[in-house]
Amino acid sequence: MKKLTLAALQLGFGDAIETNRRHCAAAVEEAASRGAQLAILPELHNSPYFCQTEETTRFDLAEAIPGPSTDFFGRLAQRCGIVLVLSLFERRAPGLCHNTAVVIDKDGAIAGKYRKMHIPDDPGYYEKFYFTPGDLGFMPVKTAVGSLGVLVCWDQWFPEAARLMALAGADLLIYPTAIGFDPREEETDRKNQLEAWLTIQRSHAVANGLPVVSVNRVGFEAHPTEKDYGIDFWGHSFVADAQGAFLTRGGREEQILVTTVDFAKAEATRRIWPFLRDRRIDAYGDLLKRFRD
Amino acid sequence: MKKLTLAALQLGFGDAIETNRRHCAAAVEEAASRGAQLAILPELHNSPYFCQTEETTRFDLAEAIPGPSTDFFGRLAQRCGIVLVLSLFERRAPGLCHNTAVVIDKDGAIAGKYRKMHIPDDPGYYEKFYFTPGDLGFMPVKTAVGSLGVLVCWDQWFPEAARLMALAGADLLIYPTAIGFDPREEETDRKNQLEAWLTIQRSHAVANGLPVVSVNRVGFEAHPTEKDYGIDFWGHSFVADAQGAFLTRGGREEQILVTTVDFAKAEATRRIWPFLRDRRIDAYGDLLKRFRD
Repeated sequence: MKKLTLAALQLGFGDAIETNRRHCAAAVEEAASRGAQLAILPELHNSPYFCQTEETTRFDLAEAIPGPSTDFFGRLAQRCGIVLVLSLFERRAPGLCHNTAVVIDKDGAIAGKYRKMHIPDDPGYYEKFYFTPGDLGFMPVKTAVGSLGVLVCWDQWFPEAARLMALAGADLLIYPTAIGFDPREEETDRKNQLEAWLTIQRSHAVANGLPVVSVNRVGFEAHPTEKDYGIDFWGHSFVADAQGAFLTRGGREEQILVTTVDFAKAEATRRIWPFLRDRRIDAYGDLLKRFRD
Repeated sequence: MKKLTLAALQLGFGDAIETNRRHCAAAVEEAASRGAQLAILPELHNSPYFCQTEETTRFDLAEAIPGPSTDFFGRLAQRCGIVLVLSLFERRAPGLCHNTAVVIDKDGAIAGKYRKMHIPDDPGYYEKFYFTPGDLGFMPVKTAVGSLGVLVCWDQWFPEAARLMALAGADLLIYPTAIGFDPREEETDRKNQLEAWLTIQRSHAVANGLPVVSVNRVGFEAHPTEKDYGIDFWGHSFVADAQGAFLTRGGREEQILVTTVDFAKAEATRRIWPFLRDRRIDAYGDLLKRFRD
């Protein structure tokens, strides 16, 4: 495949699971009608971002894979002839859940999945309570449209994850994500956070000579107990080329961003900036240490 | 040390070694007079960027460490009471040279050195002809102003190098560099290259919660044989904070950029974005492979 038309589905979500699924489906249908061969949904798109608090009742949201969501979106993918990247709360066993991206191929079958490896835990993002760190490693999923290096949210801050996907032959990197502002923060802090988030993800394109797609949710989600302020999800989904240049970028509203990535550009970039050629694997051993003390 | 005032000496260089050294010395003296405790020179500041061609006569530029340059800049550092980062063509033995950064402490002594680990080779940058890849690994140099994670130019494209410096306790990352445009390139390509270069280096700040300093040369250097067009060194030296936000940034002209980095900001950033906490060292083993095939 020389070129790929893809869609970043930047959406917001409410409390009702069925409504959220239908909202996603409508966006997928629109993306397909605009020529997208691949569509990516934001992180945990079936529900509000429930990790603002640690509540045992929220485990009711978890589901098996395969399960109702892969059935629903599998039928949709097949009908539209489109590859889908889903982000689900996976119930693997009693007391054992993951934050899992599932790739549905255009025939509706599950092409593969990725269990989020790096799990955050900071005020408003209490994910370590809900999600066991992934145990599938960093492996791209092969699909009809190429080898997809699917990672999830917090993974985006770790160059190691992107590199391992590139070394395993990923054609592009994909980040479903859910990140936003604390509404109490100052404007400068917000600007710096957003810019850091764009910078680190674009850098994975540069370091690895790969296009990168990041798909965030939008909208304000109040804190469930109103003991805190909630999260203002910042949107700004984007697609960057193999040098990190924006092919498309969103704002703060719901948007279906459709663009075409040209893999000839990635090949050309890797010929003149051949970073994989020069990695000093003889001297990288301490990357496997927690700290070099 | 809570704060550090440092200077990025963005300079251009001619053919005469002694003139270049004096030009550097004048810039160091001005930086010191403006309060800098640390000053960084561009890559290979004693000479033109000689790697545009592969000429055996250019090995005459190489020198021992310690040697004439460390003597000269050692006296200067002591007189100014400033820490200096030099970038020298090191002759280690007959037929064995390195591209070596030397850190001079404020008492004039050599605090340590770093031999460039990743060596480029692309049209106009034939460094593999001149420089044996470094064998000192990625270790910061301890000085009176902190632990300096000194890397050189092509290293800037490798997240592994930055990470290893951070894991070894570097207080900041420092890149002397020599990179420029091919004057024949189109404006869009130039813009994308420069932006990629800024992005990848700022990303090391973000990924590691560390300030980053990059110091480039400026000016056009013609191709020695006029068989090619030469290099238009693009300047744009900068200092970024621990979130990758610019503290100062240069343009295309000679500039002495003096700014103060606040290590309390780095500490605060690392508390709320604790990426080192969550690295999946159990799953990074394949980073030591050339490719995962």
